[in-house]
Amino acid sequence: MITRTLASLAAELNGDVVGDDSIVIRGVAGIREALPGDITFIANSRYDAYLEETRASAVICSREPRRASVPLLNVDNPYLAFQRIVRIFRPDLYRPAPGVHPSAWVAADARLEPDVSVGAQCVVESGARIGARAVLMPGCYVGHGVTIGEETYLYPRVTVREECVIGARCILHPGVVIGSDGFGFAFDQGRYHKVPQVGNVVIGDDVEIGANTTVDRATTHCTQIGSGTKIDNLVQIGHNVIIGKHCIIVAQVGISGSTELEDFVTLGGQAGLVGHIRIGKGSMVGAKSGVSKGVPPDTVVSGYPAVSHGLWKRLTALIQRLPQLFQRTRELEERVAKLERQGAEERVP
Amino acid sequence: MITRTLASLAAELNGDVVGDDSIVIRGVAGIREALPGDITFIANSRYDAYLEETRASAVICSREPRRASVPLLNVDNPYLAFQRIVRIFRPDLYRPAPGVHPSAWVAADARLEPDVSVGAQCVVESGARIGARAVLMPGCYVGHGVTIGEETYLYPRVTVREECVIGARCILHPGVVIGSDGFGFAFDQGRYHKVPQVGNVVIGDDVEIGANTTVDRATTHCTQIGSGTKIDNLVQIGHNVIIGKHCIIVAQVGISGSTELEDFVTLGGQAGLVGHIRIGKGSMVGAKSGVSKGVPPDTVVSGYPAVSHGLWKRLTALIQRLPQLFQRTRELEERVAKLERQGAEERVP
Amino acid sequence: MITRTLASLAAELNGDVVGDDSIVIRGVAGIREALPGDITFIANSRYDAYLEETRASAVICSREPRRASVPLLNVDNPYLAFQRIVRIFRPDLYRPAPGVHPSAWVAADARLEPDVSVGAQCVVESGARIGARAVLMPGCYVGHGVTIGEETYLYPRVTVREECVIGARCILHPGVVIGSDGFGFAFDQGRYHKVPQVGNVVIGDDVEIGANTTVDRATTHCTQIGSGTKIDNLVQIGHNVIIGKHCIIVAQVGISGSTELEDFVTLGGQAGLVGHIRIGKGSMVGAKSGVSKGVPPDTVVSGYPAVSHGLWKRLTALIQRLPQLFQRTRELEERVAKLERQGAEERVP
Repeated sequence: MITRTLASLAAELNGDVVGDDSIVIRGVAGIREALPGDITFIANSRYDAYLEETRASAVICSREPRRASVPLLNVDNPYLAFQRIVRIFRPDLYRPAPGVHPSAWVAADARLEPDVSVGAQCVVESGARIGARAVLMPGCYVGHGVTIGEETYLYPRVTVREECVIGARCILHPGVVIGSDGFGFAFDQGRYHKVPQVGNVVIGDDVEIGANTTVDRATTHCTQIGSGTKIDNLVQIGHNVIIGKHCIIVAQVGISGSTELEDFVTLGGQAGLVGHIRIGKGSMVGAKSGVSKGVPPDTVVSGYPAVSHGLWKRLTALIQRLPQLFQRTRELEERVAKLERQGAEERVP
Repeated sequence: MITRTLASLAAELNGDVVGDDSIVIRGVAGIREALPGDITFIANSRYDAYLEETRASAVICSREPRRASVPLLNVDNPYLAFQRIVRIFRPDLYRPAPGVHPSAWVAADARLEPDVSVGAQCVVESGARIGARAVLMPGCYVGHGVTIGEETYLYPRVTVREECVIGARCILHPGVVIGSDGFGFAFDQGRYHKVPQVGNVVIGDDVEIGANTTVDRATTHCTQIGSGTKIDNLVQIGHNVIIGKHCIIVAQVGISGSTELEDFVTLGGQAGLVGHIRIGKGSMVGAKSGVSKGVPPDTVVSGYPAVSHGLWKRLTALIQRLPQLFQRTRELEERVAKLERQGAEERVP
Repeated sequence: MITRTLASLAAELNGDVVGDDSIVIRGVAGIREALPGDITFIANSRYDAYLEETRASAVICSREPRRASVPLLNVDNPYLAFQRIVRIFRPDLYRPAPGVHPSAWVAADARLEPDVSVGAQCVVESGARIGARAVLMPGCYVGHGVTIGEETYLYPRVTVREECVIGARCILHPGVVIGSDGFGFAFDQGRYHKVPQVGNVVIGDDVEIGANTTVDRATTHCTQIGSGTKIDNLVQIGHNVIIGKHCIIVAQVGISGSTELEDFVTLGGQAGLVGHIRIGKGSMVGAKSGVSKGVPPDTVVSGYPAVSHGLWKRLTALIQRLPQLFQRTRELEERVAKLERQGAEERVP
């Protein structure tokens, strides 16, 4: 069992203890489930209410003064500190050992760098190259000429089709599909003709892609995902899409062909982006929004069709007041009719 | 071939026959496709119109009086009776025999209870425990320390990651992913840092999960799905979500992290729920709704942002009358301007 | 390396060259990425601006007169011509050779027509029949009694459950699930009872189905997808849905049970269709729309609830003018109140 004093954790995290720093921490948990011996955290002031109830032995929180009976570990970024604490108390126990499982099929001319792990029933096709210390969990398919960077981790049943390139330290969750054909058809003589999709997908370093997400290969050239970008589950990324660095794409988003995201863009869950537009650096798209034209940098948009987030909030509030507006208009019509009758009466005599 | 008289079916289903109960039934089909010898059903009065056209030899329906030339089998719950009839005429022919396929890899210390079936190319990791009569169809991955309950059925290519717990008599359809990492990142110094997701997923008994649906493991503690809950295809369930018993979650719904559903909640297709909210017992969320705050029990909400279903219907009707409202306002402005001019003229002299 | 003169390409495509037709073409690329030696295309006039910038040696475009310094290849349908050009310069290099991989499991009574390719770790169950020259990439599951037509191509990790029928020349992308159970439950005594789904899925010829898309089997009878229909990634098709010929279904669409699409219907991305409705021939549903009732032929609908596309555009424009409408109503109320006061004053004396 891993144990640490609160004082030693504070030293590691550049934090300050308020309370007894000699207590011994043996684990990490959420504030509602923590037990004595655990350290927990508050990253969001709405959880302050749990501070008095928690059974945790210590709580990581921001440097704002708080009243608490439990020892506090004050840090600049509580969520980041929590991330580090989890790595201390919960090491990755299940990382497979290097080596190729006897049931895996690896082409004779595939190149495996040192300490690669290829799990049961994986297939690695001709010309593929797997970087040092990369992990392929069971049932992954790595196509012809694919490149996978160092320490990249493929969970079970990931498919990477031919010629795609994945950087270093990426994480692909179960069921991810990289390099499926883009959706392109030419209509002629009453039917659709498939346009071959002969480009590829190029993914930078430190990219994470969620379970069952799909990334289509380009028609020609490449679909791109920049380094540091994090993508959630069940997201659809169309052909020739270009995604910048350090973007956040929440679950079930759909991005149509040839659209570009600059760096540090955030897309809320279930948002949809039409093709051939550009979302500027640092912009955010609200959940469930439908974006039908480009968005300038550092802008927050919501709704469908998407407008500025402030306007969208105002419009949705006004829509909820439509019953009153119709009523006010009805009353105005009656009052104006009455005024018109009075004017007519006055003028008649 | 399985055959039954209508009288014997009536006895089994506690139903009453109107018409000839000696006829022989040899199969079951939908009302439009049924052929002579088949029994069919009407669960929805909108299908009453097919009663005269159907070629079926008998029709299951509710106890309300109906005029029909075909024999009727009147029951309390026609859809339930249909369910039982299907089980009679169409037994499960394709259930794999117990045993471990020679191409499957099962860790030496995994524990398989009696009569488990492990299909071709399955992987069962160390410490996993598979309950009696459970079925793993080909290509399933069961991670370290996973528990799978009795008679649970995993269709091909299901992934259950380490330490997750699945109850008895569950059904997981092809491509389901249980226990993928939650989507959590701490932002620091211009980049996102992964927060390890070290909790698990705990699923009750009699839960069904649709094809390619994803259920993320908790950051710490557990993501929970209560007994009797039924989930459709391509649904996303975020980390630390808690779902009660006997909920219905239709296709392509997304539930963000830490949100809770009490028992008997229904979520319509493509609905999205923000994180950290609670949906009360027995409540319903309309298709495509976006729920951004908690919902009390026994409430029906729709729209985005979601409001009461009645209000939403009224608002959408009023929105469709906006062209007239703008026109009425324009006319009011003209009439008021005219009144103002008349008043001014009358006052001028 | 494949090379062609522009003149020979023009002859093959029934096109006319404007400029030097003796130049040699060695490849094909998008207009922004093309290099000298490449041919590229403009299918959309918004890309005309790139005509002067491109480094391509020739550009395929429509027959409208254009000013350009680069040789043009004028054709009737530029996108179709591009499709053919891609097939010339980029033949399918990775098509697996016929034969059954030693790690695949094929039932003794499955029937494989000539020149079928069954990849590593595939499973083909009893009674299945695979048409001539069909390809099963690694890790596919083909259930009992399934029929797969000639030249149909299954990418890695496709699941086709028992008794489903797939036509000729279809393409199923990685992770596709055909024949998962429909979502049907009868509620009785406080819990949901599964209604067995004993129908199948029947897919015509030349159908393409995108990565991780799911198609549910019928309760009884069959879910149908007509010949020539193209379906994108992450689409959900419910039980007993009937889709006509030559439909286009964009990513993340959901179609609820028993709904019918006639031929040549187009559904935009993330649209949702309620169950038991019919969409008429040639109709189009806008992206993100929610269709809650039937749509007549040759109609374009958008929004939720969906209305005619023209009305939807008008309504969304009016919604954005709601702040002004509320302001105008407020001003009208003030003006009318003033008129009422004036009238009262005039009448008082």
